[in-house]
Amino acid sequence: MLEKTNRMNYLYDFYQALLTPKQSSYMALYYLDDYSLGEIAEEYDVSRQAVYDNIKRTEAMLEEYEEKLLLFEKFQKRSELISKMKEFMDNGENNHDFNDMIAELEKLD
Amino acid sequence: MLEKTNRMNYLYDFYQALLTPKQSSYMALYYLDDYSLGEIAEEYDVSRQAVYDNIKRTEAMLEEYEEKLLLFEKFQKRSELISKMKEFMDNGENNHDFNDMIAELEKLD
Repeated sequence: MLEKTNRMNYLYDFYQALLTPKQSSYMALYYLDDYSLGEIAEEYDVSRQAVYDNIKRTEAMLEEYEEKLLLFEKFQKRSELISKMKEFMDNGENNHDFNDMIAELEKLD
Repeated sequence: MLEKTNRMNYLYDFYQALLTPKQSSYMALYYLDDYSLGEIAEEYDVSRQAVYDNIKRTEAMLEEYEEKLLLFEKFQKRSELISKMKEFMDNGENNHDFNDMIAELEKLD
């Protein structure tokens, strides 16, 4: 469950711009702010089932976007490479410019 | 016009998975294979206007995706950084492992 929450947080981060405002709000409350389905239902004055259905649909959409665009998968691979590159540089000559570039590269993900 | 074609080729490359099969076919013929609107219309037995409208709508969709996800913009920034990193390494100690990592990083974009 923790693993799923973690994955959904990432997918939400990558694809939230493609969601409707309502989908985005429900997902943020449920996954980022740890609200229960009941609390979100109360907040929006809708049924718990409606919130549940909306979140399930949104999760499926996020997985579909990931299947098509692979942004999270590429992010993970890139992060791994960047770590290796840092390690590599730490073992060799330490260069300020290079570390700046690596830092910039990280910000892009 | 060449600049627009170039941009559309990139946007198509990044977001084609989000297009319908028809949108994708028209765009590939028009932008990658350099077919004219008339030739595409003949190929699909539809009016030239229908092809034109479909392509215009698809172009707008691609720009909308780019506005939301910035994949092309990030790709450009990443490419620039990778070039700088290569240059940096070429001026310093040349290390085989490092160049392999850079090459892998490039493949992810």
